[in-house]
Amino acid sequence: MSELTAEWLRKSCPQIWDSLHDHPFLREMATGTLSLDRFRFYLEQDTMYLREYAKCMALGAARAARVDEVAWLRDSLDNIVDNELPRNEQLLQRVIDLGAADRGGSRGMAPTTLAYTSFLTATAYRGDALDVMTVILPCAISYREIALELVEVIAPDSLYTAWMEFFVGDFYGERLRQMQANFAELAARADDSRRGFLREQFATASRLEVAFWDMAYGCRQWPDLAVPVG
Amino acid sequence: MSELTAEWLRKSCPQIWDSLHDHPFLREMATGTLSLDRFRFYLEQDTMYLREYAKCMALGAARAARVDEVAWLRDSLDNIVDNELPRNEQLLQRVIDLGAADRGGSRGMAPTTLAYTSFLTATAYRGDALDVMTVILPCAISYREIALELVEVIAPDSLYTAWMEFFVGDFYGERLRQMQANFAELAARADDSRRGFLREQFATASRLEVAFWDMAYGCRQWPDLAVPVG
Amino acid sequence: MSELTAEWLRKSCPQIWDSLHDHPFLREMATGTLSLDRFRFYLEQDTMYLREYAKCMALGAARAARVDEVAWLRDSLDNIVDNELPRNEQLLQRVIDLGAADRGGSRGMAPTTLAYTSFLTATAYRGDALDVMTVILPCAISYREIALELVEVIAPDSLYTAWMEFFVGDFYGERLRQMQANFAELAARADDSRRGFLREQFATASRLEVAFWDMAYGCRQWPDLAVPVG
Amino acid sequence: MSELTAEWLRKSCPQIWDSLHDHPFLREMATGTLSLDRFRFYLEQDTMYLREYAKCMALGAARAARVDEVAWLRDSLDNIVDNELPRNEQLLQRVIDLGAADRGGSRGMAPTTLAYTSFLTATAYRGDALDVMTVILPCAISYREIALELVEVIAPDSLYTAWMEFFVGDFYGERLRQMQANFAELAARADDSRRGFLREQFATASRLEVAFWDMAYGCRQWPDLAVPVG
Repeated sequence: MSELTAEWLRKSCPQIWDSLHDHPFLREMATGTLSLDRFRFYLEQDTMYLREYAKCMALGAARAARVDEVAWLRDSLDNIVDNELPRNEQLLQRVIDLGAADRGGSRGMAPTTLAYTSFLTATAYRGDALDVMTVILPCAISYREIALELVEVIAPDSLYTAWMEFFVGDFYGERLRQMQANFAELAARADDSRRGFLREQFATASRLEVAFWDMAYGCRQWPDLAVPVG
Repeated sequence: MSELTAEWLRKSCPQIWDSLHDHPFLREMATGTLSLDRFRFYLEQDTMYLREYAKCMALGAARAARVDEVAWLRDSLDNIVDNELPRNEQLLQRVIDLGAADRGGSRGMAPTTLAYTSFLTATAYRGDALDVMTVILPCAISYREIALELVEVIAPDSLYTAWMEFFVGDFYGERLRQMQANFAELAARADDSRRGFLREQFATASRLEVAFWDMAYGCRQWPDLAVPVG
Repeated sequence: MSELTAEWLRKSCPQIWDSLHDHPFLREMATGTLSLDRFRFYLEQDTMYLREYAKCMALGAARAARVDEVAWLRDSLDNIVDNELPRNEQLLQRVIDLGAADRGGSRGMAPTTLAYTSFLTATAYRGDALDVMTVILPCAISYREIALELVEVIAPDSLYTAWMEFFVGDFYGERLRQMQANFAELAARADDSRRGFLREQFATASRLEVAFWDMAYGCRQWPDLAVPVG
Repeated sequence: MSELTAEWLRKSCPQIWDSLHDHPFLREMATGTLSLDRFRFYLEQDTMYLREYAKCMALGAARAARVDEVAWLRDSLDNIVDNELPRNEQLLQRVIDLGAADRGGSRGMAPTTLAYTSFLTATAYRGDALDVMTVILPCAISYREIALELVEVIAPDSLYTAWMEFFVGDFYGERLRQMQANFAELAARADDSRRGFLREQFATASRLEVAFWDMAYGCRQWPDLAVPVG
């Protein structure tokens, strides 16, 4: 492994990322056939996810070696707390107002949300700023890629446009570019054994991204909390 | 809620515990029809699970208020490190020698093992000795119940007898009785809001027990690491 | 205890806070007789302190229950990373340029800096947002009080004016007011046993504030790293 | 640095360890002139210290990579919980019965006990099993060295013989030998940058050992909790 960059990690597990881009949830968003109920389930769970994602960034700041690393993770946290979470909550309200049914998404963390957020938290307590940056990247990168892809094909007045416009915008693009630059600077100090570990961690978080869309598409709540999809 | 005991928690989510006792993995163990491959997958993942389960107990000891709580969790850790893990590893070797195929269980933590161990770790870092005792109980209690049930029906020379004899024995019975007594002593100090939270946490760990048997029965590895069941 | 506020805590340990206000380091700042070497030692150690103080806030954010608590601690962290640390580093450079000698302050954390920052870190890992807010308050409150007191008596062109002007200003005043309001909101939910504990923790952090000025005044480094005061 | 062993670390900071062996507290133990009050203060603070020392070992077990590391730290924890703490508590009772006055040692952690235990806790949360082993070694090694030295000169019927007989015994000797062997095995995997850091951490814990005897000899409690030495 010559250099450890976010772009390199992104290319290191193509099978996982192919199944991310091919996901029926995203294909149905593109064609406008995704049921509102499923989108509601997604937004409910994503709101719970983002709260823990933000705390994982705070832990990365707390476990950073240098003050500039603290500031990098603070900047990422700012974006979640100030932009993504309020946007998600507004969009969820709008979807509920449009008549989306509750398929169990409001009844607490579904299995994959619990798995993903627990993985982020456990990783952050065991690791440092670089470990945190590694596992938050798959979400950050894939949302940009997905949104840029969808914006080409989606009907411009779609409900889903409201969701993706943030991720195609310049603010988010610049935020992601910064994250990737910061990651590369920090990762340059990692030795080979650590790089192998980080690559595995990136793959795990990428698999959890796919699993999160699976969960949303299937409205998969715990069996005793589930509401069947109509 | 008048009193918070392990027995009370056990009764508080009957739907989940019914699906635990009715699980096809356990029914096929009883009838002797469970495929060796599935049992191998189970043992491989359970070994990974127990390593983190033990560390969760160590975290509980570290986050305990009093020295007797430290000793309680140390006693639980002793059992995993000195008994359950070595027994699991020996049994896994025997199953491999008997010709069980690798269905992907050796390729790293499968989704549910990752979810369950991450949940335990995240819970322990956020909480204290009581939080840890709450989430380790479903595994500890259910193995006793399952083994006592199976021992009545299983063929005495079955491979699976070797697995369950530890959990029906007096040593484990006394260990579990101690855990439950310690839990009750600690839980007596919890206020109502905390009890509600602990009940939810116990239910979550119980759901993950069911999900663990689901994973083992289906040999469910991550899609990119999976080997189809023959 | 009827209500738990920052103002109440501040009044709860008058002996400690009296010795803080009477400290020779601060009295000599007021009269302009404080040696530059001692001020340099203070700034060197305070810079190391603030880096950990900021991370303690990040841990508080990570261990918060609600998103607004995350945002409160983020705001405190912002002030340290964006204002206090850069100001400290500039002032240290200026003091070195003015000829202040190194009395061992550059040789790593002195005993009290190690004690105070370790206490903050250990508290944050064991506790939550309220625990963190409790132990960061003594520093935050006392700097405002000290600066408001000194500004009345100090020569306006003093080097020390540059240090205190930030803490007498409106920005810091409003920041502190916010911290106190947030603390009161969170503390309102604490029961009596927890309030007693928080009061002890506030007293401990207050004692460490006094000890920090003692350390700076005596240029007290570890014996094997010390440079005698001229 | 060719090899990183406990013995090498022990030799790496001779100035600190010389002042440990020359300490008036220990010299007065040897001559039998140490006041009972000071010994009581020591035992009261050491009991509080050992509770956190044990939890630091539990954290080391929780943050270990391999199961054998978990078992190593569990073995160290066993010794504190099963031997050193009960022995300390019995000895304290005996010293109180003999008429030792309370010089403030019972009023909570004195400054150096707080500093040392906070340092151990903060180190354990930031690090792993090797980090924990590094900072627990100075206490473990120095008690053996001190006891072996004192046993040569002390009156055999001294009160202090009861304290030191445990540390000169074969059980403790073998326990320490095991710790050192485990440390060497783990430290062999550390790279140069990490070794430099561990050396610093060992020196810090050694300085805190000296400071702990200083505190006990001077019965140094926080100023507002202090009782003057008679």
